[in-house]
Amino acid sequence: MPDAHRSGCPINLTLEVLGDRWSLIVIRDVIFGDRRRYRELLTRSEEGIASNVLADRLKRLVAAGLLTRADDPGHRQSVIYSLTEPAIQLVPLLAQMGAWGRRHAPASTELSIRAQLLEEGGTPMWEDLMAELRARHLNVAARESSVLARLQAAYEAICAAGV
Amino acid sequence: MPDAHRSGCPINLTLEVLGDRWSLIVIRDVIFGDRRRYRELLTRSEEGIASNVLADRLKRLVAAGLLTRADDPGHRQSVIYSLTEPAIQLVPLLAQMGAWGRRHAPASTELSIRAQLLEEGGTPMWEDLMAELRARHLNVAARESSVLARLQAAYEAICAAGV
Repeated sequence: MPDAHRSGCPINLTLEVLGDRWSLIVIRDVIFGDRRRYRELLTRSEEGIASNVLADRLKRLVAAGLLTRADDPGHRQSVIYSLTEPAIQLVPLLAQMGAWGRRHAPASTELSIRAQLLEEGGTPMWEDLMAELRARHLNVAARESSVLARLQAAYEAICAAGV
Repeated sequence: MPDAHRSGCPINLTLEVLGDRWSLIVIRDVIFGDRRRYRELLTRSEEGIASNVLADRLKRLVAAGLLTRADDPGHRQSVIYSLTEPAIQLVPLLAQMGAWGRRHAPASTELSIRAQLLEEGGTPMWEDLMAELRARHLNVAARESSVLARLQAAYEAICAAGV
């Protein structure tokens, strides 16, 4: 397997796993949108991901150990995806991506509010969010405070204000 | 232009600029390897970047406002690339990528030492490094301490030890 990698540089290896325009978008939607089913990921996609691209990336992310798939307890013949610990540890990377895009790209106000809160919250907030994702996806005992609820509330408030 | 983007999400916009397997590799080599000429970027590439891919990414990075190109004062008929402020602000993102890859991918010891130091140094070290890059690439007055020199020394020490 080592020969299959371009180099042993950790930045390169991260890009080998995640360096395409869709894989991190799917992870982002699972983390921040709590979308865990194929249909939700497809129909609620802000970027209009194509069904074949989504199916391919879900398969790759499972193969790479970033998502697990299981039968959905709520629906027969349906599958639910969960984040793994390595995927949960992408939170700081996604926070930095959001911070950079907010500053250097034409990001929209509604879709930037969560990135702004995450940037301002810094490492302590990222740790809380990761604990929360572990509770939700890995069935680890939950903490009380909810970063996801705060982010969602801020997003809904700004959408309702019609900015 | 807004219509050209998949969405206004700052994470998505960052991926639109940098979400391919090579753009951030080139930025990484300019930042950490101080490689600022086409030939250095080509011949010293750990990942063996192909010449046409390198030429294409340099062009794209200049168009995206992440690199600037100028005549090399040291060599006639040669071009030197400099980081822009937005590219310098990718340091925290690259640090998080290195931290993730070091933990979750088969990173080599020699190529991980700098990622480890950057992770341990945290935000203050990233700020110092960015100040240093501004001095070097944007001709801003330099500070004294050198993060790049520390990273390079650690890398050379571990290579010399033959780990």
